[in-house]
Amino acid sequence: MNQQYSSLLLEKAVNEFAKLPGIGKKTAMRLVLHLLRQDASTVEAFGNSIITLKHEVKYCKVCHNISDTEICQICANSQRDASTICVVENIRDVMAVEATQQYKGLYHVLGGVISPMDGVGPGDLQIQSLIDRVSAGGVNEVILALSTTMEGDTTNFFIYRKLEQSRVKLTVIARGISIGDELEYTDEVTLGRSIVNRTSFDGKM
Amino acid sequence: MNQQYSSLLLEKAVNEFAKLPGIGKKTAMRLVLHLLRQDASTVEAFGNSIITLKHEVKYCKVCHNISDTEICQICANSQRDASTICVVENIRDVMAVEATQQYKGLYHVLGGVISPMDGVGPGDLQIQSLIDRVSAGGVNEVILALSTTMEGDTTNFFIYRKLEQSRVKLTVIARGISIGDELEYTDEVTLGRSIVNRTSFDGKM
Repeated sequence: MNQQYSSLLLEKAVNEFAKLPGIGKKTAMRLVLHLLRQDASTVEAFGNSIITLKHEVKYCKVCHNISDTEICQICANSQRDASTICVVENIRDVMAVEATQQYKGLYHVLGGVISPMDGVGPGDLQIQSLIDRVSAGGVNEVILALSTTMEGDTTNFFIYRKLEQSRVKLTVIARGISIGDELEYTDEVTLGRSIVNRTSFDGKM
Repeated sequence: MNQQYSSLLLEKAVNEFAKLPGIGKKTAMRLVLHLLRQDASTVEAFGNSIITLKHEVKYCKVCHNISDTEICQICANSQRDASTICVVENIRDVMAVEATQQYKGLYHVLGGVISPMDGVGPGDLQIQSLIDRVSAGGVNEVILALSTTMEGDTTNFFIYRKLEQSRVKLTVIARGISIGDELEYTDEVTLGRSIVNRTSFDGKM
């Protein structure tokens, strides 16, 4: 359907929304008309929230996590274990690990993984700053928590080569069968790796 | 997952996006992070497009279609047949009819249909202004193009009662089997109505 907009302002707003990933013209129209039905203060709060975020957002100088301050709340928290650094791809991964409430160390957000196909090299990521953090001392363990993809594995290996001379303990998060998953439906790579990396069992789950 | 935001600004922006219909917290996060990767001018263009639309949008004084001017482009177009008015629920319906390129008359946007369940009465819709347009003269035909729902039918009947004393010809758009649909899969109400409202066939499609 070749849509005929009776308002250029409407067309402009719809086009802006349609630039968002996964939002087509029809959905964009629906979202814009929804906002148009709200009162002016609501629409301003919506529009300004993203503009303010873009202008005022900071990235933590230590771990590069998104933050409202120069040093993020996690890095600034003296209750946390500063000797352990969990290396993740992006800030969503930080949120995912935080949500488990199982980790009390600090993070290091790479900003992606090494991917020659996408033109992402080590220099585009926060790898040197990770090496610098480790070199500065006080770090006992670096946990690699990247995607189990070729790119993630490449990045893991690159970091391993950079840190193997240091005294830091390097670990990767456990890969295996998800809790609640059934064996017969698990892919063979995961199942194979979970057998190779079996852990001792003391009768407690 | 109880998401832990490391930035209040981020949390605020995600919450604003998550208020949109059909957008959950995860999608909102994805959209916000997408915008955050764009440069500042792109983000400003996005945020301001909806704010500007809300502040500057006008509704045509004649047909109540969305417009950048006091009188919309359709009503202001002297090439169009001002003696025919197509009554629709909303501006998306105007766009849908315009896209067919089969209609050269004017429109009247009600802003909805009568729906006691949703607390929408005739006074909440642009019905009186439609009566006034017809009373002002110069209108030969009013085409009712509302939804085929109980609410649409109620609104059709309400307008019929209001206009039956006037000399205007009142029509409804044809209902029947969609082009390309197969008979056996058509619902019986539509099929029944398409038999009752059969049209004469002169050998041409």
